[in-house]
Amino acid sequence: MEATVGELGEFALISAMTDRLPVGAHVLLGPGDDAAVVAAPDGRVVASTDVLVDGRHFRRAWSEAYDVGRRAAAANLSDIAAMGAVPTALLVGLAAPGDLATAWVLSLVDGVRDECEAAGASVAGGDVVRSETLTVSVTALGSLEGRDPVTRSGARPGDLVAVAGRLGWAAAGLAVLSRGFRSPRVLVDAHRRPAPPYSAGPGAAALGASAMIDVSDGLVADLGHLAVASDVSVRLSSDAFHVPQEFLDTSRALNADPMAWLLAGGDDHALAATFPPDVDLPMAWSVVGRVEEGEAGVLVDGEPYAGPGGWSAFD
Amino acid sequence: MEATVGELGEFALISAMTDRLPVGAHVLLGPGDDAAVVAAPDGRVVASTDVLVDGRHFRRAWSEAYDVGRRAAAANLSDIAAMGAVPTALLVGLAAPGDLATAWVLSLVDGVRDECEAAGASVAGGDVVRSETLTVSVTALGSLEGRDPVTRSGARPGDLVAVAGRLGWAAAGLAVLSRGFRSPRVLVDAHRRPAPPYSAGPGAAALGASAMIDVSDGLVADLGHLAVASDVSVRLSSDAFHVPQEFLDTSRALNADPMAWLLAGGDDHALAATFPPDVDLPMAWSVVGRVEEGEAGVLVDGEPYAGPGGWSAFD
Repeated sequence: MEATVGELGEFALISAMTDRLPVGAHVLLGPGDDAAVVAAPDGRVVASTDVLVDGRHFRRAWSEAYDVGRRAAAANLSDIAAMGAVPTALLVGLAAPGDLATAWVLSLVDGVRDECEAAGASVAGGDVVRSETLTVSVTALGSLEGRDPVTRSGARPGDLVAVAGRLGWAAAGLAVLSRGFRSPRVLVDAHRRPAPPYSAGPGAAALGASAMIDVSDGLVADLGHLAVASDVSVRLSSDAFHVPQEFLDTSRALNADPMAWLLAGGDDHALAATFPPDVDLPMAWSVVGRVEEGEAGVLVDGEPYAGPGGWSAFD
Repeated sequence: MEATVGELGEFALISAMTDRLPVGAHVLLGPGDDAAVVAAPDGRVVASTDVLVDGRHFRRAWSEAYDVGRRAAAANLSDIAAMGAVPTALLVGLAAPGDLATAWVLSLVDGVRDECEAAGASVAGGDVVRSETLTVSVTALGSLEGRDPVTRSGARPGDLVAVAGRLGWAAAGLAVLSRGFRSPRVLVDAHRRPAPPYSAGPGAAALGASAMIDVSDGLVADLGHLAVASDVSVRLSSDAFHVPQEFLDTSRALNADPMAWLLAGGDDHALAATFPPDVDLPMAWSVVGRVEEGEAGVLVDGEPYAGPGGWSAFD
């Protein structure tokens, strides 16, 4: 096969990509036509789109193509889960320089495929174009399975605040890489490859979650969006968070604050949700705070969070 | 309002964008949450994605932001129509340099909005990120309204080949602009703002179209995809095409071939479809050829088309 995507050409590249992509059960018509057809059994489809840019959302020096694929897929699939929906399909737009290695693209596709599989979805279609800036745009679709969507705006005073999935691991891994280290491996790997708790999303919906959000910018920042949308005060208790031993060891070595990773680290794609106080939460969820009346926002131990803020697209 | 998107920041920009976007009837939950919810009344959703890159799919010097928005939306909405579906919603991913004018982005959004309105759809969500390369990625969703999708692979020997919408106008306009001219205005405008025949898509499905494709790369190139997918020979008759007077005048001035615009010009987003021979076609469709048995491909007046080829992503 030709070494670069420019040499290979659009149609051969698309063919090589789709050859690696099984068509899942939700996809009624897969890649190869003007559009795909995806099942939406309850008469609604959940849809979300994200754009990832080389040098900003990933770095080729720090992440293998396979991991970029997993992260790009995870960022979107997790948005679907955060609505309480089950991911069904992904559409992938790739804008790539002509000298990009074909092998890089095919590894990316493998990563997208495997992350889809972890979430129960598959790739239904996409687009390939040339650009000076390597850019991956992903749209995920999902099914609510007859339930109402869990939005950001339903939190009520008295609700519990709980999180599912890893918090701060990707930020800790990024801190390690930023200082030029390659270990601890478990943190670096967490940056390279998130492990969103996909099934916890629809699980929370079934448990009666009143509001939910994907933690992509950082817990305090994202709960801030939820608090504003719900017009409530979210009160977090720092002692409710378990600080992993790896965080303690590594933060000491890097002279960093492990609580900042937990409270402000993004990209793990944990889920944060609010639940009525009488809910019986399964193991996947840890209670970290409570919803109260008051100024819309997030307080940590009763104070505005003074640590580093969340991530903003144009910083 | 701040003059550049970098000064304005992500959240204020998104807010200014969504303020300009009405939420249409198909959108059950619009922008502002982790994902949108869109109606899919017959239990299926049609989905297509396209990526447009500055300097490649549009040029800021030649197209106003408003027109880039219309074109970006049209390219995707037309893919939905080409399946025989009615467009319902759009998701828009914008990757933009920090020094891009806020006004440019808001005009783009106006263009997307108006093209959506022309197709009966609305913007359900999106993403905004920073990138050195201005890139617009659009995903369109649509409803088949209970019909089967019209794919590329259903053409049968004996079928008529017909087109709906303008052919070659965008290419003629591009030729005018490429030579440094700004008129004839009607051609330049056709390049800047396509007018896809959206309702002809579901109309063709209702008429029993056996295969259909959106003409984005050029009629011969796109019918070539249809011919290969259907394993048939598509025979076009050049004398079946009406050559507009504007093409004759302008091609003479530019020393160009007007048939090349008709047969190989892309970006008008006409629809090309095949129909059983006994179909009673309405005015929107012009018969330009016939499907026969034989080597999969397209012949013009019995010969392989010798004119310029279609557009390829990595040329």
